[in-house]
Amino acid sequence: MESTWNEAHLLGILSKVGPIGSGKGLEFLEIGVGDDAAVVVLQENRYSLCADLIAEKVHFDMEYFTPRDVGYKAIAVNISDLAAMGATPLFATVTISAPKDTNVAEIQSGITSACEEYGIVAVGGDLSDGASIVVSVSVVGGHFGRNPMLRSNLAAGDTIFVTGSLGGSAAGLRELKGSSGKASLSTRAKRHLHPLARIKEGIMLAEMKVMAAMDVSDGLAIDLWRMADASNCGFAVDNIPIQDGATLEDAISGGEDFELIFATNRPAEVVDAFKATGQREPIQIGIVRKDLEDREILGKRAHPLGYLH
Amino acid sequence: MESTWNEAHLLGILSKVGPIGSGKGLEFLEIGVGDDAAVVVLQENRYSLCADLIAEKVHFDMEYFTPRDVGYKAIAVNISDLAAMGATPLFATVTISAPKDTNVAEIQSGITSACEEYGIVAVGGDLSDGASIVVSVSVVGGHFGRNPMLRSNLAAGDTIFVTGSLGGSAAGLRELKGSSGKASLSTRAKRHLHPLARIKEGIMLAEMKVMAAMDVSDGLAIDLWRMADASNCGFAVDNIPIQDGATLEDAISGGEDFELIFATNRPAEVVDAFKATGQREPIQIGIVRKDLEDREILGKRAHPLGYLH
Repeated sequence: MESTWNEAHLLGILSKVGPIGSGKGLEFLEIGVGDDAAVVVLQENRYSLCADLIAEKVHFDMEYFTPRDVGYKAIAVNISDLAAMGATPLFATVTISAPKDTNVAEIQSGITSACEEYGIVAVGGDLSDGASIVVSVSVVGGHFGRNPMLRSNLAAGDTIFVTGSLGGSAAGLRELKGSSGKASLSTRAKRHLHPLARIKEGIMLAEMKVMAAMDVSDGLAIDLWRMADASNCGFAVDNIPIQDGATLEDAISGGEDFELIFATNRPAEVVDAFKATGQREPIQIGIVRKDLEDREILGKRAHPLGYLH
Repeated sequence: MESTWNEAHLLGILSKVGPIGSGKGLEFLEIGVGDDAAVVVLQENRYSLCADLIAEKVHFDMEYFTPRDVGYKAIAVNISDLAAMGATPLFATVTISAPKDTNVAEIQSGITSACEEYGIVAVGGDLSDGASIVVSVSVVGGHFGRNPMLRSNLAAGDTIFVTGSLGGSAAGLRELKGSSGKASLSTRAKRHLHPLARIKEGIMLAEMKVMAAMDVSDGLAIDLWRMADASNCGFAVDNIPIQDGATLEDAISGGEDFELIFATNRPAEVVDAFKATGQREPIQIGIVRKDLEDREILGKRAHPLGYLH
């Protein structure tokens, strides 16, 4: 449905800078914002498609999120899924449903900021009135000859890594809920409001033919559990890197850190490659076990506990 | 964000039948529902991308929509945009935000029905709690060598057509608002609840190298106005086909008929081709004028009035 001043308003905002973003997708964009659809000219290739929404009072609260944070986060959580696949961000579409007094221009500003940061091009969307703020984003990523990394590719004996320490977002959320103002946001609070999608890391891992990855969106315990289910195997985690200021529980079952979990049978090679390119070094956390039932975290039986929205 | 029992629930519903839909997109689908993203293998080609949402109390009211109608309509309005471009439906992603007591399985059932009808494949999505029902859909269509039809391609002297009579959806909405039950829905009411996207017509027009098209989503007057703006021209409409039971005003400024407006300099050829294939015959409504200011409907100066959500 191509409807109303509302969509015209969103398209107007998008059009101010042409299609939003200055990423690789621009090379393939033939018709941008303003028609019934955008038209892109794609080469023969694998592409990843996914969509996620963030909803007020479920994924965020306007008590401590600015409209700009909302827009940024809606893009970032989708980019994180592309990172987990090892795909290069190309195109996004954005739909916003929000009460009429919402500062949509500020949501759009956050969307623009994230599009620029991750090199994705927003090519269209829709905007309507609504009972509360819901921002839904769909993204297209390109694999450009790299194999997609799958949840189902864990293999017994693989070393499991995460790309960074965990628990920061959950600890940050707790701080935000307890704070009366936003004068001095901690790194953790910023991490919650302004998550970082590990797109460089994802592409580098796919280039190195790492086959299994997933982003930590609901928490290490539940997300690794899902990978093990998809791969029909178990795991033993013996090391959990905890972000400063977070608790072990935050790191095990807090969500939205958006670091990547991945597994490889060439651990030294992968670590060396990250070092050689000056990237943060991935952190070894455990090993893939053969038996489906054999699932341990720090010596105890694992449970699929996570941050449930 | 890949989160919660909610998304698991949606994916569970989607997975029951594999990816939803049995369309052409299946040929290109490598990894379906269940990973961080779906993976498709595309050939070199033009593709159309777009996204539209429908929101409760804005685009529909649960007083007269069933959850199944909501799911169907969310897909159909997006397919209509692909029809207007002349693209073949390939892939959809769907996000649903809804109160926890919503019958999501029924929404999903409507989505499935529309995906089957239009030959599109739903490859992923997200589901979360929310204050009211918002269904956002993004779609990918393939042009397969055909040129995309654009709003900006009207040329002076072209004959303007619509693919069918107008006003039915607006009249149907009025009936639904005034009715106490759904025992005997008129064709018009069904048209509002269960819109038909003109995908066959769109593809056929693009195959015939018709260059200018748009779907009637907000009403003939406003949508033709937009085409004229995009094409830097005027128009004179001297014939408006009115659906049985609708008024002239419904047909001029009622929205959501989802018939296609198109223009061509080979009107007889196009009409003959529709006849020859047993399609409904398109209806000639007017002509494209050169002067931007020269915009008439039934002899009066036109105004961009439409159905505003």
